Amino acid sequence: MSIRYLTAKLAQQIDEELMSAAGAFSLDQLMELAGLACAQTLATVYKKETHSRVLVCCGPGNQGGDGLVAARHLGMFGYNPTIWYPKPGSKDIYQRLQSQCQNMKIPILAPSTEVDSLRDALACSDVVLDAIFGFSFKPPVRPPFDAALSLISESKLPIVSVDIPSGWDVEKGNAAGIGLDPDVLISLTAPKEGSREFAGRHFLGGRFVAKAMAEKFDLNLPEYPGVEQIVEMTNNASSQKL
Amino acid sequence: MSIRYLTAKLAQQIDEELMSAAGAFSLDQLMELAGLACAQTLATVYKKETHSRVLVCCGPGNQGGDGLVAARHLGMFGYNPTIWYPKPGSKDIYQRLQSQCQNMKIPILAPSTEVDSLRDALACSDVVLDAIFGFSFKPPVRPPFDAALSLISESKLPIVSVDIPSGWDVEKGNAAGIGLDPDVLISLTAPKEGSREFAGRHFLGGRFVAKAMAEKFDLNLPEYPGVEQIVEMTNNASSQKL
Repeated sequence: MSIRYLTAKLAQQIDEELMSAAGAFSLDQLMELAGLACAQTLATVYKKETHSRVLVCCGPGNQGGDGLVAARHLGMFGYNPTIWYPKPGSKDIYQRLQSQCQNMKIPILAPSTEVDSLRDALACSDVVLDAIFGFSFKPPVRPPFDAALSLISESKLPIVSVDIPSGWDVEKGNAAGIGLDPDVLISLTAPKEGSREFAGRHFLGGRFVAKAMAEKFDLNLPEYPGVEQIVEMTNNASSQKL
Repeated sequence: MSIRYLTAKLAQQIDEELMSAAGAFSLDQLMELAGLACAQTLATVYKKETHSRVLVCCGPGNQGGDGLVAARHLGMFGYNPTIWYPKPGSKDIYQRLQSQCQNMKIPILAPSTEVDSLRDALACSDVVLDAIFGFSFKPPVRPPFDAALSLISESKLPIVSVDIPSGWDVEKGNAAGIGLDPDVLISLTAPKEGSREFAGRHFLGGRFVAKAMAEKFDLNLPEYPGVEQIVEMTNNASSQKL
């Protein structure tokens, strides 16, 4: 039995169930473990000796929250993250996650609908953590993120995307060709339909799904090694080509 | 400069500061990372192939909450934890943490002032995670925990204690001789004065203290390796003897 790729609807349902009575998790908990997994994935592939300057690009939703948590953990790991967060979410948790980063002296570029600051930041970064859009993304890509995706792509920097590469359709992938082309993907909880064709290094994080819930949704998750919070998946796209 | 051992008062102050504007953390976040560190410490020393049955003993305060989080992560790691939680804390978070364990089918012994269930559980366990008392503990040890400490000691099972071995004075250690005698200690945030004489394997967890805060309190924390959430400390008590 192979791992299940989730539709946007199913991803939403599992997310809700994790925070309902059947899971009982708080958003703070899930985001902490998800963000830690993102930071560990980036650090596994890109060492701080060569890729210290991480530009963490955050969208306005929960995906952006994962990015803020990841930025903080990357700071703890000894990286030098910078945060681009042009449209801060309104929920209280986003404000707290930003404060935690500020207390760690992680620079957060001033919120803006212009992308000049992003362009400048890309010029002095080694790798991008793409936490812009997640499994609730629906096209079209709105400003300033449309211009941002172009700038990030043009930068030719290596990209680590969270859950689904930004600009990709959650189920159809990058069929429209407007999405990022990441080197690394960290899927959270379970991979999404749209990532089936992703051919780079693919990790899974979010080690908080109880067995009963995994069975209920036929997730067939791979086994995480030891006490790790991430597991590298065998490349599905490549194996399909064999 | 060597690591700073905290008085009870200073530990309390740092805890409060982590959750104030200077830290901006929620209890959910701190407890998640602390509990994960506890689970990883136990799993580092006691492998699941030989020590699968972990009895997680939880006190009524935040220390017990760390234990509940650790139990869940141990379950995710493939251990078979059982929880003894005779006096569940009244805060909402404790109820949620319990539910998360129940959703993972981790047995929680019925709350009771009797220790019969604890005695039975010890008889079929391989290792104890002691999350009974933390840095806010003040003697005397009240029922049912007085009887519990005796039973746990008599069981001769290996013990992993969280923050300060239960029954030890937070500053004076086990001078009174009524505390547990753990094999492993996982200090959270920074070690406490009372643990100076601890001679077993000593780990540090709680990788969430910003540099500025560590400097403000002269913590001189050791460097955590890579992306790890725990670091093993050199044995202070032994090195003092040299």
